[in-house]
Formats: sequence, structure tokens, C-alpha cells
Amino acid sequence: MIVKVNPRGSMDQLSQLEVDFLKQSAQSELYQLYRNCSLAVLASGSETDDARALFKQFDDFDINVVRRERGVKLELHNPPACAFVDDQIIVGIQEHLFAVLRDIIYVSNKYSHVTHLDFNNPNHITNVVFDILRNARVISPMQEPNVVVCWGGHSISEYEYKYTKEVGYQLGLRKLDICTGCGPGAMKGPMKGAAIGHAKQRIHDARYIGLTEPGIIAAEPPNQIVNELVIMPDIEKRLEAFVRMGHGIVIFPGGPGTAEELLYLLGILLNEQNKDIPFPLVLTGPAGSAEYFAELDAFIGASLGQEAQSRYRIIIDDPEETARVMRLGMEKVKAHRKLTGDAYQYQWGLKIDADFQLPFVPTHEAMENLDLHFQQDKARLAANLRKAFSGIVAGNVKKDTILSIEQHGPFSLSGDTKLMSMIDKLLNAFVRQGRMKLPGSTYVPCYRVYQ
Amino acid sequence: MIVKVNPRGSMDQLSQLEVDFLKQSAQSELYQLYRNCSLAVLASGSETDDARALFKQFDDFDINVVRRERGVKLELHNPPACAFVDDQIIVGIQEHLFAVLRDIIYVSNKYSHVTHLDFNNPNHITNVVFDILRNARVISPMQEPNVVVCWGGHSISEYEYKYTKEVGYQLGLRKLDICTGCGPGAMKGPMKGAAIGHAKQRIHDARYIGLTEPGIIAAEPPNQIVNELVIMPDIEKRLEAFVRMGHGIVIFPGGPGTAEELLYLLGILLNEQNKDIPFPLVLTGPAGSAEYFAELDAFIGASLGQEAQSRYRIIIDDPEETARVMRLGMEKVKAHRKLTGDAYQYQWGLKIDADFQLPFVPTHEAMENLDLHFQQDKARLAANLRKAFSGIVAGNVKKDTILSIEQHGPFSLSGDTKLMSMIDKLLNAFVRQGRMKLPGSTYVPCYRVYQ
Amino acid sequence: MIVKVNPRGSMDQLSQLEVDFLKQSAQSELYQLYRNCSLAVLASGSETDDARALFKQFDDFDINVVRRERGVKLELHNPPACAFVDDQIIVGIQEHLFAVLRDIIYVSNKYSHVTHLDFNNPNHITNVVFDILRNARVISPMQEPNVVVCWGGHSISEYEYKYTKEVGYQLGLRKLDICTGCGPGAMKGPMKGAAIGHAKQRIHDARYIGLTEPGIIAAEPPNQIVNELVIMPDIEKRLEAFVRMGHGIVIFPGGPGTAEELLYLLGILLNEQNKDIPFPLVLTGPAGSAEYFAELDAFIGASLGQEAQSRYRIIIDDPEETARVMRLGMEKVKAHRKLTGDAYQYQWGLKIDADFQLPFVPTHEAMENLDLHFQQDKARLAANLRKAFSGIVAGNVKKDTILSIEQHGPFSLSGDTKLMSMIDKLLNAFVRQGRMKLPGSTYVPCYRVYQ
Amino acid sequence: MIVKVNPRGSMDQLSQLEVDFLKQSAQSELYQLYRNCSLAVLASGSETDDARALFKQFDDFDINVVRRERGVKLELHNPPACAFVDDQIIVGIQEHLFAVLRDIIYVSNKYSHVTHLDFNNPNHITNVVFDILRNARVISPMQEPNVVVCWGGHSISEYEYKYTKEVGYQLGLRKLDICTGCGPGAMKGPMKGAAIGHAKQRIHDARYIGLTEPGIIAAEPPNQIVNELVIMPDIEKRLEAFVRMGHGIVIFPGGPGTAEELLYLLGILLNEQNKDIPFPLVLTGPAGSAEYFAELDAFIGASLGQEAQSRYRIIIDDPEETARVMRLGMEKVKAHRKLTGDAYQYQWGLKIDADFQLPFVPTHEAMENLDLHFQQDKARLAANLRKAFSGIVAGNVKKDTILSIEQHGPFSLSGDTKLMSMIDKLLNAFVRQGRMKLPGSTYVPCYRVYQ
Repeated sequence: MIVKVNPRGSMDQLSQLEVDFLKQSAQSELYQLYRNCSLAVLASGSETDDARALFKQFDDFDINVVRRERGVKLELHNPPACAFVDDQIIVGIQEHLFAVLRDIIYVSNKYSHVTHLDFNNPNHITNVVFDILRNARVISPMQEPNVVVCWGGHSISEYEYKYTKEVGYQLGLRKLDICTGCGPGAMKGPMKGAAIGHAKQRIHDARYIGLTEPGIIAAEPPNQIVNELVIMPDIEKRLEAFVRMGHGIVIFPGGPGTAEELLYLLGILLNEQNKDIPFPLVLTGPAGSAEYFAELDAFIGASLGQEAQSRYRIIIDDPEETARVMRLGMEKVKAHRKLTGDAYQYQWGLKIDADFQLPFVPTHEAMENLDLHFQQDKARLAANLRKAFSGIVAGNVKKDTILSIEQHGPFSLSGDTKLMSMIDKLLNAFVRQGRMKLPGSTYVPCYRVYQ
Repeated sequence: MIVKVNPRGSMDQLSQLEVDFLKQSAQSELYQLYRNCSLAVLASGSETDDARALFKQFDDFDINVVRRERGVKLELHNPPACAFVDDQIIVGIQEHLFAVLRDIIYVSNKYSHVTHLDFNNPNHITNVVFDILRNARVISPMQEPNVVVCWGGHSISEYEYKYTKEVGYQLGLRKLDICTGCGPGAMKGPMKGAAIGHAKQRIHDARYIGLTEPGIIAAEPPNQIVNELVIMPDIEKRLEAFVRMGHGIVIFPGGPGTAEELLYLLGILLNEQNKDIPFPLVLTGPAGSAEYFAELDAFIGASLGQEAQSRYRIIIDDPEETARVMRLGMEKVKAHRKLTGDAYQYQWGLKIDADFQLPFVPTHEAMENLDLHFQQDKARLAANLRKAFSGIVAGNVKKDTILSIEQHGPFSLSGDTKLMSMIDKLLNAFVRQGRMKLPGSTYVPCYRVYQ
Repeated sequence: MIVKVNPRGSMDQLSQLEVDFLKQSAQSELYQLYRNCSLAVLASGSETDDARALFKQFDDFDINVVRRERGVKLELHNPPACAFVDDQIIVGIQEHLFAVLRDIIYVSNKYSHVTHLDFNNPNHITNVVFDILRNARVISPMQEPNVVVCWGGHSISEYEYKYTKEVGYQLGLRKLDICTGCGPGAMKGPMKGAAIGHAKQRIHDARYIGLTEPGIIAAEPPNQIVNELVIMPDIEKRLEAFVRMGHGIVIFPGGPGTAEELLYLLGILLNEQNKDIPFPLVLTGPAGSAEYFAELDAFIGASLGQEAQSRYRIIIDDPEETARVMRLGMEKVKAHRKLTGDAYQYQWGLKIDADFQLPFVPTHEAMENLDLHFQQDKARLAANLRKAFSGIVAGNVKKDTILSIEQHGPFSLSGDTKLMSMIDKLLNAFVRQGRMKLPGSTYVPCYRVYQ
Repeated sequence: MIVKVNPRGSMDQLSQLEVDFLKQSAQSELYQLYRNCSLAVLASGSETDDARALFKQFDDFDINVVRRERGVKLELHNPPACAFVDDQIIVGIQEHLFAVLRDIIYVSNKYSHVTHLDFNNPNHITNVVFDILRNARVISPMQEPNVVVCWGGHSISEYEYKYTKEVGYQLGLRKLDICTGCGPGAMKGPMKGAAIGHAKQRIHDARYIGLTEPGIIAAEPPNQIVNELVIMPDIEKRLEAFVRMGHGIVIFPGGPGTAEELLYLLGILLNEQNKDIPFPLVLTGPAGSAEYFAELDAFIGASLGQEAQSRYRIIIDDPEETARVMRLGMEKVKAHRKLTGDAYQYQWGLKIDADFQLPFVPTHEAMENLDLHFQQDKARLAANLRKAFSGIVAGNVKKDTILSIEQHGPFSLSGDTKLMSMIDKLLNAFVRQGRMKLPGSTYVPCYRVYQ
């Protein structure tokens, strides 16, 4: 079955050179990446976080770009049926397909031919993140600060999911836009809730921003409410996009990915140069999640200290208060940007150390060598902890890392005994609470913690 | 506490005469009606179908119209807090308030001064229904047939509610608009579902039409997703609006109100002059509702016969199929309107007998005198059965009727023994299944069936 | 040749009763009026102010309303070719056709069946004017004061026409909307100019409001830039619409119609009750028109006195200053409306005496009996002078009045000798300057002034 | 005086790197170019084609880019007063300022750092032209062919100007968009006319595309109706943009610039590979221009032959027919693009030889060495003739070339005697008809033709 899809969304026409480049690369790694991300988008309706199973199921899927009178068309061979309603592609998926084309092909093409950017230069990285977001048209000069980033697990319980919807609803009623990692669970709930809140407030141009990356898109495909999808090149650039573009962050219960995100953010906020920057941050969940947050809070307190704790507020079972804190926080953010002349839509002024920007590739060696001791700068410790959790996420859901673990066994994490014990406890809680993977399989840890 | 509210929505400015008229009537019955409907709209967030309790709770509420630079402003005294988010009125409620002003004051004013309309003349009634809808700007010449009316109970179980959301979602994915009686339960679910479906299809001008009437608005206040609210003068004009404006109807499980609606529609479709008119009609519910529909179907078969049964299709537990039937039905409706030159947005060609148009006031006498025997024309029997259920709805939720029943005891229904037995059985099922009233109280029947 | 036209603009669908009403009246006077106004709109491209010639040229033109799937369609028989571009009707004309339908048929239908309005009651007249404007959707609660009414002759010289365009351009650059009597000359120039100004300011929703009346539409058909056309029932309601809806007025050189308008406005502004109402009023023209305004000013000074003169400012050859005065005037108007609570879009607070509201029918007798003496209240004198000029306009361009003058000879105007002499001088100047009729014919006066 | 201007239009925010790059270059040639183009845009209201006088008059003008909360702001020092209305910058000019920023700074920045583009490779040039247009968002996949390019002189007589307006009006009535070189005269008239035509057809998103280049923008500044302004890097890329983006071309009377454009286009259309490509081309003017076109036609016939002549149609004094030919031509263009799969908005399929793409710098030597003999391929002859006229345009209006001529005397053109005589005759006619420069100065030829 072949289906042709017209362009839609912020992807313009491709040039002849760009299409040629794409065609020549049909056998290349880039092309495989492009094909896989497209498939992930098309299969976003199916309920699974098992990327490998997905790719296996649709191994006869293929995608071509053809030049036509509307610039380009996509030719889909054997696409998943769930992308269609009565043989018509769902418009949200159509947009996402062209976002993939834009972010995988166009961006790759662009950066492979420039001479003036050094991808090890923090300043350049920050500019590249900006450039990718700008190219995706998610940076609009006229909008005022109102983007709330929602972080949290893709595998959460029903009552937690309901709670994320309720928070989203309250955010939507307060005319705030939502940005998430665009998968299921805590990444979908707030958008669904906000959609209802926005409808009640008659907001027709609400933004549901999804930031993903190639390694994660298949396990956590964007839900189709996302109307601004950007695929960042790697996890670090995705995290930087979150914190420079978002004006406030709400963190719901989640697993190692959520821990990674929180540690990343706290590590940055602990930077002396950022101490005057307002950054509304709320950790919230339903009554049943109180213990979860108490545990997380204790871990942060013990590892990063009170200053880190002072940067967030924990709100239990109160969606309205959560949304109110964000709404009020926006005012402070706006005032601060105005005062400092920093852009509303991209916070250049936030200092991010190279340690948080350079891609961390979780090889067995890299994981084993992580410096997980108390005796270091708090921000550095946060950076290393962030990497540890990042590796665990990769071991759980990323194809290549899973393969590597199948070959070489679980990652080894070692360091300060007390810290190791705390990490182990936290990870065990994640396992126990089913936060590692979507239900349906027994979780086999991809790591071993040596205390 | 006094709050001032600016105009919004399809209500234009009022003339000096109209404002004067309103002010003079501050003590009048009309004004009370206006005040109560406004209160119902403002309290739409609260979860109750007990209008009397509502009015009692907010007995110090008052509303004034004042002429100001934007034409008019509403002055609310002691409005319910749930209408506000952080002290700002929810925009959907703001629109609804002006819809009430438009439909209660403006329309009443208009019809009280015209000489050429006879409200007992079926043709005139049909024109008045049209005129009210047109004045509310819900009749747009350029739209093609795509309005699906969803009927069903306001008090339904959680799994039935979920099912109505799922059907709404599938309708929304097929770019169909939703029209309901605009209360909770089966009147809200389809809209919430459709909102998500529309968001995925990037439809920004979807219509969520709510048709209500003054006697029912307090018990079943419009949810705020409704973006086109019309308050029809009475239940019969509301029903006529549904069937002339809707292009297809989906019926979910419900109580006597839903039975009333189905009988009304079947009575009309049984009219010989309507036999060639396509009217997509699906009765649907989740697996657990199969028995409910079997019972209803049996009742229809026994009372109105096979021809009536042939007008609907029962679909159990298949939201996609339900939506697909509607989508395909729209094509037939469009073709038929084009062929006959009948308007897309108001089906003038549907023949409705006076028996279905003239307001039925359910006094004890009127209820007792209903002709409930088999030996009559099927359409007439449908009309009488419709009235019987209409009276029961009034006895359940309408303030005045409840009062009357408190004074004079329950209504008496009598007629053909077999028919009475069937009615009794159906009503008992409604009671048993909790479809009479929202949970939280024991249901005391407002009727007695004499077999 | 038969052409079918779909509805467009602010005319909704018609009800069955309304269409029937229209069909029954096919032979009636109302129908003739409707047909003629429609023809005038269709022929608006042709350059003539001779209505009779127009009607003669297209005497086989006919128009029917048919009910169709889009509500109604218009069926045009033998319409003027200039309404079409490559066989497609110009969209502006399409809108105007439906405005005629709305204002002639719908409004007439409405007012012929109401019992509570007394058309001799000033208050009721003001409400009717409002109601007609509201029905045409030209009264929008959310717009702020920015409507500049431009008055002036339909027959003006090329350099005057250029000047009106230049003023319109400067008004457009200042984001002001334009309202005129919607014919050629000074009624078209400001709109064309403003269109360019608005384009440069990227204003896409600019308003070009045209107010006309059945007696004048054929002689001065609406140019198609007009995007909000309203046909008021008579000249007095049209004048009232101008002064209640407009927020400021610019008067260009013109003939008796312009004099009528100026006298009407001054008569109202001289009313004691209006003395605190800000009403920006500028008389302006190119250098070559300086004498014209000097003459007019002298006439006003001598007849209505200095107070009247203090109400306007004469600006010669300075479009920018003219526009700037209007822009600043808008601020004062806004402040005053806000202070007094009067509506931005319809100035209820302006006091207009019955003398200015009741239709004046310029029969020979009525014209002869006009009280044109100095010894009367200034406002009354203004009212009578207004009527005198109104009669002359009718004698120049209105079909019935022209007929009457052909039968009974010119109107006689008599009164105070000095006043008569001034009137005679002014009228002679109009004749000499070619302001009575479009060029191409010798003007034969329809009046005689007895000194 | 310092004025700050917010971003507007299709220019997104700048990155930190880009702003830094700009700041570092404050003394650079690029910065001067940027400053001068900005000044040209700001002074677009003044009536002159003397760039040097302009730059002299505003030599204290300066412009800075500052990073602010809306991304960037422009800081204007001592800008020309004509860019403001009552101290507010005209929105059209505001948009143009950011178009200059985008096309001068951003584009330059971009191309100075890429490795894979060879600016001598025709294919790459075509891709760069596309890329610049795409970056300016003038290439929209969803639009159908309707862009009519209007070429013609900036210095034309009043009756010719009126004619260009009339043609624009007729194009606008046919819903066609306009693209010009965006200066005065024949580049402004069609837009003004089309604006009125579009208004009558209620088209609110009409496109008025202006394509200019840094060397010409000051002499022919964009009129502010232009709502899509692109500054191409050089004259050859500008010409390529015209013919790949435009769907049909109308040529009005003009001087050497118009001759250059016509020769460029004919040279391309004479290419064997383009012979099946439909390209609607009309040469048109008022009755008084008949002789002009006869002369031009004779020149083309004698130099490029009948095949070249067969590619255009000359229409005298018939704006409607001109517009009709374009309208019908659009259908053919659309059909051909669909058939060949070529993009609606950028005609990749048109073959353009390097000779027409590589920038021609009109030094004295280059002009003298032009091969102007009959014995060569027609397309090549067209290319050389095009260069000859291009040099004369530069000598007339471009600052650097004027300087060079002041130093070294007029250009020498020599070649085939008969051809030289024809060129001389044509140029003399341009001089005589005042087409070389705007009126107000005596024209001193910048060339000498040796026969």
C-alpha cells in the first residue's frame, strides 16, 4: 500500500539540492534515522514503549520524498493503519511527519556544511539549539512568557495520569501553554487537560509543544495534540531547549527520566550565575504520590543540599495551587526578562556549563567511570547524577543501548557508599512503582549499583 | 461582591428600549427567569442536578444590565465562585451569560410585539424556531451537513460516560460537529471527546452546540465547552431545533428524557411525508449497555412497530463504527438536501405535526388524560408516549412540577394494560439503573403507573 | 441570461415565511423598490447619476429569491455586464446584493408587523435606526471610536477628487475607518485613499461603511470598496445613522446635498443639550476650494451665527492636518463616551429633535411653506434650511420628485429677503461650479428663489 | 533622535551569534550596505531616484540591532521623518526594515560559512535563489499559480502610470497577485490598482511581492504596499527570482532596465530546453505607447528573430484583455507544473544558462568587451545585450558605477554596425522619452555607442 501525503505545518518546500541529498542517502544511517522517526510518528496511536517491537512489526515500512507541484510529497509504503481515519491521514500526524523531515534531514544537511560552529563550544551549542527551534518556528517574538514545561513519567498509574490532566486543565484555564517530552503518561495528560481548559477559555491558538529526540521518539511517540513538534539532535540539546524555552516547570511523578530532568535543572540553577534568575518550579502529584516526592526530596536534600531544595516547591494534591504558582511565576519571569533585556522566548541569560551540554554517551565504560561522590561541587555532582540516570533511561528504552546491555550485561554504578545506597533505594522504588517501563512485562534492571 | 462583565459572543448591543424594557421588568416573572438562567450558567461547574438547592444556595445572587461604552455590561451581585479562575470570569461562561440575555430578554421582547405570528400555527412555530436559531447565529449558510446530535442521560455510569467520550472522539476525528442538550453525562462526554479529536485534526472552528430551555437549564447547566448556546423557549421548540438543525443523531443510554427524545423523533419519522428523508440514527453504548438497548428496542417494537425500528441502528461497543455511520450518513443528507433544495442548516422539509409542536404542560390532569392505547395511529401513540415521558422528566427536575407533585402527589398514568406494563418495566429499569437523578439521593418516583 | 448568486456577507438565511412574503409581493411597490435597489448595486460600475436612464437601459432586469441548500439564492435575469469579471460576479457586488435583500425585505417585513413602535416618536425612531444598523452588523461592541464620516459632493472636479483621496490616505495611515454616503466623488475618493493607507499599515479589517437610502442609491450607487453597506429607509434615518455612528465628520466641497448634511449636523449641535458633546468636524478642500468654504462659512455665520461656526474648523489644502485633527478628536470622543457611559458605536446621548427626524417629503406645497426667516430659533432655522436643500437634492436626482417637477414646474422657495438672497447666491455658485449634477448635461434648476 | 522599532514580519529572532557578528562588523562594508538599505527603506516616501543625494541628506543616520525581550529591536538614529505618521513608524516600513535585516545580515552570515555551495555552479545558484526566497517565506506550498510579475520603467509619464494602475486593477479583480521590482512608476502602479481590485473582491491576503537588490534599493525604494519584500544579493539572482517565482509577466514601457529584463527573459525562453514551458508574457501600454512597443518589437525582431517575438504578445490600450491573458495563462502554467511535477511556487524546470546567472560587473573594460555581433547564438546575443543594458542602468543609478563614470568617462559600446545603430536609436528614444531618470534633471548619457 502506498499513500501520498501533502506538506503541512512549518516545513517549507525543500530545495532540489536537499531532495537530492536525501535521495543519495537512501542507504545511509541518516536515512534509517529519518525512516524510523517517521514510523514512530505514524505509530503514535499504538500503546507501547517497545521501539524494537514496533520496528519489527513494520519492517516493510518505507518512506520517500518526491518533488511535486506543492514542493514535496511524502510517499509512504505500508504505513501503520492507526495513522488513518477512514483512509485519511490524521492531520496532526501529517504535521508531525513534516516536522521529522524538517528536523532530521534539513537540519542535518545544514549543520554538516557549516564551518563556523564548534560543537564543543558551549556558546555555539546554545546557538544551535536556538537555531533549530527557530527553524521549527517555535520561537515567536510577539508571545509573552506562558510556556509551562511538564515533566514526568511515561509510565504512571491511572490516578496519577488523571492528576496530570487536572493540572493541565487548571493551567489551560489560566491561558498557559504546555510543553512536554511528547510521549504518553505525564507527557500527554497535561495536554489533554489543557485542551479542555483552553476550549472553555475560547483560546484557539494554544500551543502544545513537544520536544523529543531521535533516540526516544519511538519509545515515546508524540501524541497528536502536540501542534509544535521539534526533534532535537540529542538528549542534552533537548534538555537545553526545555529550560531555555520554558518559562516554568511542573514535575509529576516519574522514573529515571524524570530524575534525570530534575537533576539537570537543579544542577543549572545551582550555578552561581543563575542565582537571581526566577524559574518557577513545582513538584506535584496526587495524595497517593506524597511519599514519592518525600523520597525524591530527601534524595535531593542529602545529595545536593538545601539550596537545591529551595529552588522548588512540592505541592500535593492541589492542581489549582500548582497552576496559580505557575501563573504568578510568569509575571516574575516577564519582569526579569524585561529588566535584563533577555528574550521572552529563549532565555540566553541562563548559564549552562559544558558538563550539561556535551552529549553523554552511556557506554559501559562511561557509566562505570562516573564520579558519584559527595566531595565535589554540588553542580558537578548534579551533572554526574544526571548522567547516571540518563544512562539508565537509555538502557531501558533506547535500541542501541539495550543491545549493548544484552551483550555486555548491566551497567555498573559505583561511588560513595551512602550515595550509592540512596540511588539504589530510589531506583528500587521506581521499579516497585512500575515507573521503568509500561506495564505488561517484568522489568529487568539494566544497571547494578555497587555500594 | 459585584463583578462587571463585558459582552462577548453573538449577542450584539442592546437598544435603549430593550434595556429599559428589561429594567422595568425587574420584578416580573421574565426577570426571574432571566436571573435564574444566568445563575444556572454561572454555576455550571458545580456537580448537581438539584435546581432548587442551587437557587437556595445563591439566593442573594442578582444580575443587572447596564448601558456602557461597549454597549452593555452585566453587573453580577454575589455570583458563584466557580465561574471564576483567579478572579477572572471563564470566557465560556461569559459567552453563555450573553446567550441567556439574548435568548431570554431579546427574543421575549421581540415576540411579545409582533402581530403576524400565531403560536398555534405549526408553520409559524417552525419559523419561530428558525428565527431564534438564526438570531443566535447558529445557522450559517456556508457550512455543509456535519452536525451530529448526541442524546442520552445526564446521570450515567462511569463506563457509559467514558464510552460517550470515545464516540465523541471518533466523531471529532471525522470532522463532525457536536450538538447536545448541554448538560453533564451523555451531553458532555461527546463534546470532551470531540475536542480531542478536533485538536488532532487541527480543526480550530469546531462547533459544540448546546440547545437547552429555561425549565431544564438549572438542572442541566451547559458545560463550558459549548461554544454555541441557545436557550429555546420550551421543550417542544428545543426538540424541533434538534431535528431540523441536526444532520444525524446518536442516542446513548439515558432515562425518561432520552426516551422522550427517541419517541419524539420516531413519531416524526413515522410520518408518511418523511419516509424518504434520510436521517442517520444510531443507538449506541458500551458492552454493558447492550441489555438496556435490547429492552428499549423491544418497547419500541411492541409499541410503534417494525417500521419505527427500521429507522435506527443499534451498535454495541463500537465507537468507530458509530462515527463511520454518521460520516456516511452526512453524504446522504447532503445529497438529499441538494436534490430537494432544502437548506443544509435547517431542514424545512421535515414534516412535524402540531401534536409534536404545541407545548405540553404536564399538569396532573393532562398526564392522567393521556391516551395511552395501542389502537391509534403509531405517530399519535408516539406523540402521547413522548408526553408521558416528558411529564416524568418535569416531575424529576423542573421546579414548578416538583412543587405541584409535592402538593398533589405523583402523576397517574393509565391506559392499555399491556402498554402500561411495558412502561412500568422501562421506568423501573431507569430507576434501578440510577438514570432518574444524579447519585446521592434516593429516587422517589413522581408517577404511578396503573395497569 | 440568468445568473444565480450565493449568499455572502452579514445576511443570514431567510425563513420560509420571509421568502413567501417576498414572493407574494412580486407585484408590489416594495418588490419594485427591492428590484431597483438591486439593479443600482449591480450597475454601480457605470458612470452616471441618472437613475431613470439606468432603469430604462435595464428594463428587462429581474431578480428572484429562491430557497436552496445554502439557505437562499438570488436569481438575476439580464443583470448589467459590468457587475461581472470574466462571468464571475464581483464579490463586493455580491455582498451588496444581499445587503439590499436584508435591508429592504427583511427590515420592511419586520417593522410592518410590530405593535410597540410609534414612528412619530423620536425615541422610537432612534431605536429603529439602531436596530437597522445592528441587524446589518455594523455595530460592534468591541471597536473603539475611529469612524470618520466623509461628506461631500458626488460631482466634484478632478483636483477636488484627488484631494479627497489624499485626505482618505492620511486617515487610513492613522488607522481610521471611513463612512460615506457611498456614491462617487467625495464619497469614493476617501475610501480609495484610505485603502492604500490601510494597506501600508497592514490593516486587513478596515471598515468602509456606506450608508444610503432607496431614493438615492440608483443615482449614487455604492462603490464596491464599501464593505459594510446599509440601506436606511429614508434620508432622515440615514442622517441620524451618520451622526450617531460616526465619531467625527470631514466635509468636502459639494452641492445642495452637502449643504443639507452640514445644516442638519449644525442644527443638532446647536441644541443646548448637546453643547458638551465633542464632535470633531472639519471642512476641508484643496487650495482651489478656499473660496467655496469662505462662502459657505459666511452663509452659516449670517444665518446660524457664530456659535454654529465655532463647531467646525476649516482647513485648506492640508490633508495631514485634517487627519490629525480627526485622530485627536477620537481621543476626546472616547473619553467622553467612557465618562458618560454612552456606547462607542452608537451615540445615544446626542439629542435630536423631532424636526430633524420626521421624514420631510418635498412636495411643492411643503417646499413653498418652509419657514425661511431669521426670526426663529437657530436650530429651527437650521432644520428648515436643511429641508430646503433636501428638497433640491430630491428635485435633482430622485425619480419621483423629478417627475413631479416636470409636471408642476420648479419648487418655490420664499422668506426673508436677505436670507433668500444668500440662498440664491449659494445655489448659483453650486450651479456654476457644476455641483448639481455630473457633467454631461446642462443643469436646469428645480427651484426658484423668491427674494 | 533615537527611535526603537519592534520586530515584525517574517524575520524571526536573531541568535546571539548573529547579533554579535553584526556588532563586530559595525565598521565593515556589510554594515554599510545594511545601513544604506535600511535608510532606503525608511526614505521610501520621498520622491527621488538619486541615491547619492539621499545618502548625503541623511548622513547622520545610523542603525543598531539590540537584543531585547522580543528578540531584537532596531535602534534608529535620526531616521527620515517621512517614515512616521504622528511619531509612529508606518507598519509597512517596519516590516521592510526587518526584511533588510533578514536578507542582508542573516543571509550573508549564512552563506559566508557554508562549504558545499559553489557560487559559480549554475545549479547551486538556483538553489541559493530558492533558499533566500524560502527564508523570506515567499514560497508557500499551498498557493496555486497566480503571481504576475510587472516590469516597466520607474520613470514613466502620467498617462502610462495611470495605465499601469488600470492593468493592476484588472489583475486584482481576477484575484491575481503582483510582483514587481518595488520602486515607483510601473513598479508601484500595478500594486495600487490591484489593491483596489482585491478590495472589491474582498481578498484580504493578497500578495504584493517586491524583489530588489542592494544596488538598486536606494534609487528605487520599495513602496509600502509591498507586503513581501526580498532583497536579493545581486541583479542576476533578482532576475532569476522573478522568472522562477512569477507565473506570468506583464511588461510596461520603461527604459534600459526594462530592456534588460525583456532581453534576459527572451534569452532564457530561446533556450531549446525551455521551448515547451508555458510562460504568459504580454507587452502592454496605453495608446500613446504603441510606437514605443513597435520600436522595441522591431529591435527584438531584428536582433533575436521571430522565435523570440513569438514568445510575447503586444496588447495596446486594453487592460482587461491583458489581465484576461494572464488569468488564462495561469491555467496553462498550473497544468504544466502538475504534468511535470514542477513546484507551483518555484519553477525548477526552467533552464537558465550560466551566462545569465553569473553576476556581470559593468566595469569600463567589461562593457567595452561585450560581444555585440549578430553572428552568434541568439540566446548568447540576448545575454550580451542584456549585459549592455544592465551596465547602462548601473551607470544611471548605482552609486559606485556613477562614480566610476565620473572618473573614467562614459562606457563604450561597440560591435556590429547595424546592431549598434539599432541600440543607439533605442537608447536615444529612451532619453527623448525621459525614461532614463526621474524628471527634474537633464540626462547625461553614461555610455557612448560606436557604430
